[in-house]
Amino acid sequence: MTDFMNEYCMHTATCGELRKADVGREVVLTGWAWHNRDHGGLIFVDLRDRTGYAQVVVDPDCVSAEDFDTAEHLGREYVLKVAGTVRERSAEAVNPNMATGEIEVLATSVEVLNTSVTPPFAIEDGIETDETTRMKWRYLDLRRPEMYRSLHLRHKVAQAMRKVLNEHGFLEVETPILANSTPEGARDYIVPSRPNPGKFYALPQSPQQFKQTLMMGGIERYYQIAKCFRDEDLRADRQPEFTQLDVEMSFVEQEDILSLTEDVMAEVLAAAGVEHEFPLPRMSYAEAMERFGCDRPDTRFGMELVDLTDIVKDTGFKVFSSVAASGGVVKAINAKGAGDWSRGEVEKLADVAAENGAKGMAWVAFTTDGQEKSPIKKFFTDEEWTALKQAMDVEPGDLVLFAADTYAVASAVLSALRLRMAELLNVPREGHSLLWIVDFPMFKYDEEEKKYAAEHHPFTQVRKEDLDKIEDDPLACGSYSHDLVMDGYEAGGGSLRIHSAELQRRVLRRLGLSDEEIDDKFGHLIRALELGAPPHGGIALGLDRIVMLLAGKSSIRDVIAFPKTSSASDPMTGAPSAVTARQLKEVSLRTL
Amino acid sequence: MTDFMNEYCMHTATCGELRKADVGREVVLTGWAWHNRDHGGLIFVDLRDRTGYAQVVVDPDCVSAEDFDTAEHLGREYVLKVAGTVRERSAEAVNPNMATGEIEVLATSVEVLNTSVTPPFAIEDGIETDETTRMKWRYLDLRRPEMYRSLHLRHKVAQAMRKVLNEHGFLEVETPILANSTPEGARDYIVPSRPNPGKFYALPQSPQQFKQTLMMGGIERYYQIAKCFRDEDLRADRQPEFTQLDVEMSFVEQEDILSLTEDVMAEVLAAAGVEHEFPLPRMSYAEAMERFGCDRPDTRFGMELVDLTDIVKDTGFKVFSSVAASGGVVKAINAKGAGDWSRGEVEKLADVAAENGAKGMAWVAFTTDGQEKSPIKKFFTDEEWTALKQAMDVEPGDLVLFAADTYAVASAVLSALRLRMAELLNVPREGHSLLWIVDFPMFKYDEEEKKYAAEHHPFTQVRKEDLDKIEDDPLACGSYSHDLVMDGYEAGGGSLRIHSAELQRRVLRRLGLSDEEIDDKFGHLIRALELGAPPHGGIALGLDRIVMLLAGKSSIRDVIAFPKTSSASDPMTGAPSAVTARQLKEVSLRTL
Repeated sequence: MTDFMNEYCMHTATCGELRKADVGREVVLTGWAWHNRDHGGLIFVDLRDRTGYAQVVVDPDCVSAEDFDTAEHLGREYVLKVAGTVRERSAEAVNPNMATGEIEVLATSVEVLNTSVTPPFAIEDGIETDETTRMKWRYLDLRRPEMYRSLHLRHKVAQAMRKVLNEHGFLEVETPILANSTPEGARDYIVPSRPNPGKFYALPQSPQQFKQTLMMGGIERYYQIAKCFRDEDLRADRQPEFTQLDVEMSFVEQEDILSLTEDVMAEVLAAAGVEHEFPLPRMSYAEAMERFGCDRPDTRFGMELVDLTDIVKDTGFKVFSSVAASGGVVKAINAKGAGDWSRGEVEKLADVAAENGAKGMAWVAFTTDGQEKSPIKKFFTDEEWTALKQAMDVEPGDLVLFAADTYAVASAVLSALRLRMAELLNVPREGHSLLWIVDFPMFKYDEEEKKYAAEHHPFTQVRKEDLDKIEDDPLACGSYSHDLVMDGYEAGGGSLRIHSAELQRRVLRRLGLSDEEIDDKFGHLIRALELGAPPHGGIALGLDRIVMLLAGKSSIRDVIAFPKTSSASDPMTGAPSAVTARQLKEVSLRTL
Repeated sequence: MTDFMNEYCMHTATCGELRKADVGREVVLTGWAWHNRDHGGLIFVDLRDRTGYAQVVVDPDCVSAEDFDTAEHLGREYVLKVAGTVRERSAEAVNPNMATGEIEVLATSVEVLNTSVTPPFAIEDGIETDETTRMKWRYLDLRRPEMYRSLHLRHKVAQAMRKVLNEHGFLEVETPILANSTPEGARDYIVPSRPNPGKFYALPQSPQQFKQTLMMGGIERYYQIAKCFRDEDLRADRQPEFTQLDVEMSFVEQEDILSLTEDVMAEVLAAAGVEHEFPLPRMSYAEAMERFGCDRPDTRFGMELVDLTDIVKDTGFKVFSSVAASGGVVKAINAKGAGDWSRGEVEKLADVAAENGAKGMAWVAFTTDGQEKSPIKKFFTDEEWTALKQAMDVEPGDLVLFAADTYAVASAVLSALRLRMAELLNVPREGHSLLWIVDFPMFKYDEEEKKYAAEHHPFTQVRKEDLDKIEDDPLACGSYSHDLVMDGYEAGGGSLRIHSAELQRRVLRRLGLSDEEIDDKFGHLIRALELGAPPHGGIALGLDRIVMLLAGKSSIRDVIAFPKTSSASDPMTGAPSAVTARQLKEVSLRTL
């Protein structure tokens, strides 16, 4: 890693650093014994540390009888300290698949620093061991090179982020973990407070209010690699505690936030050895919804949504024409390569559609032998059919999947189908794609609650040109918010914030809050805005997710040292444990 | 701060950076208006950002009528964007007390970015405002230059720590905040877990077990600037959540840990502009107790403890002689400068002695006019008295304070008296003193529980030469632990850890645990030690405290952006709040 890796420790070299140029060097290595072979009177030990493997040769002529005996009885994962001399391997012993494959270390002494019982799984990459077992012995799992690489990558990503932010005068400021519940958002973890019976801290879902307060406090440029908490169920890409790079800056326009973030991401990608062009492409929220049906499109492949509403609005297929007549849309995707799928296979996709709110799923298969199979073709005129095929740009081997519903439902259905088809068809999604989604609406209408809600959050700045629409045409109000999308995941999100107390009141009123409710829930914020709050904004980047994508892993648990798992019984990674009787009594008393 | 401080924002210069060399430069500044004076038809505005102040001159001949009107009506803490040209001040207007005092900015435009109501206290250093008020408007408090300097110093200290550790191949790894309760230590905060009724996470008191597990996981070199939690009451130097630099390293001896830590501290002190000699002095635990009565001595002044037991063991003053006869000690300090204190003033010190367990406090005052005042002198022979005075090296003006008790109580009493006397006598304690306390005992005997306890913690490595004393002579066992002491505070502590399962079992048995209890409470650890744990050790440095000392503050609350205070009503800094009825119901159900 650096020249100082061998300072302040027992070893004078790391196993993985040795090369042909080191031949003749006397070294002391430490590490774990993995393979241990007896060959022609010599003992060969593969010694592993976090940097790699080195082959150690123990020759009875070069070590004491005691040390040779030690070497003969080494077990897997024994911890060793080996002194010796680096020498070139004989031509036939060179291992081109090993970074240190041209050399070996001829031992002059072998010392066992610790023994080991036989580990329950192999300490190597690509094991098939189930996750429960890996989590139970997480320390053994972490010794596997691929786990070390993930944690090392995470380290490098964090340092890259800090480097750019430090250079730009950002101050790393810690905000509290023991905080207070905020009115918005997901479910809080709450923490009973001993000296305050019946009162609780809440673990922050994000440092949003703290970072805005820091801007009001004149810090001007803040960042933190911050732990955030949501009391939600586990998923492959979600943990109850997660980490984000949290950034806030004063005296900025939205453009400044995007540019700074791109500087950060350029450094992050460079640290991970990933190439990407900058500046990043930008797409409006409307365009993303139109073309991909979602606001975090994976743009590494096509299969975009096509709007057929105009073409089918008068068709005899009533499902389509009635949706068009009632203000809905008919859209479709063309899944190339699925044209020969059986009816049964195709119909199974209807489950995906249904999960996303569709009442049914129409389809047309264009087989490679030139047939057109579809339950709906008969309802169309030739002109409509030809126009539809042209719009979908079909050829033999294509499968066209339709959604006819409200704009929101049709988008959700086709977005999900698009991703599922990419998966089922193994559509190549090489490399990484990053882009900005911008021009989000400020408000959305919550059909269930029958009121307006904030699309991002209620502290988001309304677009200058839309300020007079807040009261009368809220859905036409744009906002200065931005999402960073990476490989189809939301890698970050943020906005310019409201810094005017009056505007903040107008937005909160539009969300249905009375002046009393505003004072009660947001009085602190309003008061702060009235006391010289500067224009400010920021972003939060999902560190776990970015590292997961850069590491090429499919689970966030592979880039966190001690993730939560629902199954593991290990106290380091498992579910919460029962508390002692004393603790339980204290809590019971406190919650009364 | 750097060249990039003016990138990605509205300003082209910071207020504090402008110097005579900038004369003629066209700049855009942003910041807060503080003073606003009308003089000779011109308006002078002191514009403040986090870097400092710049004087802005608004001349009606150089700005629009509208902008001049704006400038005439500025209030305190109005947020401004000012364009203008840097010019030299006239000789009589130069302010040598101001970094930017040689220049001013002649405005060409003045824009109000936000207004402000009148702030409740002055945004400047050294205000007398009570802490409750400062915490209520923490964002205004943070705008004060000295608060920014503290947070900036904290940032620099954190980056200095990371720099040295990154260079030495340490990996920054995050460990969980939602963890499980460990059997040792102070009171845990516990967190109900929604999907697991009756079960709780615990917030970690330190990542001790996690960092040892990382070493077992082959990470070899780990650090983290980690949040730790203790459910204790507030104090000036204690917060329920606090931050430590947590370091652990494998394949090391204790010496490696000390050297690495000194590298870190050298960089930290340099970042704070503090000079100190390295390597740091070391003192054994025994010597620290002997000379200072405590294991975290402030060595910036003398007033050391002197052992008089031999001199007074046969004295007629029975309090002394009986203590000596029963194996106790008689020790004293010489407080120079208090010899003329009144009897009443001296006797008040007995409270300090009593708080630390003393049953009384003997004293002798040597007045500047040559008298010797003492209630106990009459009990001594001339020889004893002369020997005592010689041992205490007295001269007129000295006050000698005695403690006669067990070694532990006498040490605690005189240590407390020494610090109190230094405070009362304003003994100079300039600069900073850092030293190591080493050679701690492994065990201590807990008189109340009638059993042995670990002096540091039960995972500490026993000194090689004492391994055979664990069972039969535990109090003679030394350990490889180390405390870093700074200005009389414990700034850090750590140890080499046990990496042998068998030794760990022996130590835990010596602490009174049965094999069943060991398996039950520490089975996870023992299992990990059996699976190839490497030799390892580490240290934790108290970031809050180190920054507090370097910043010259007397309260940790002045170096934390959002500290907890018991009095504040502010949701950002205050006590925990009541939860909603829904949350309360969930918790009640969960704790049944």
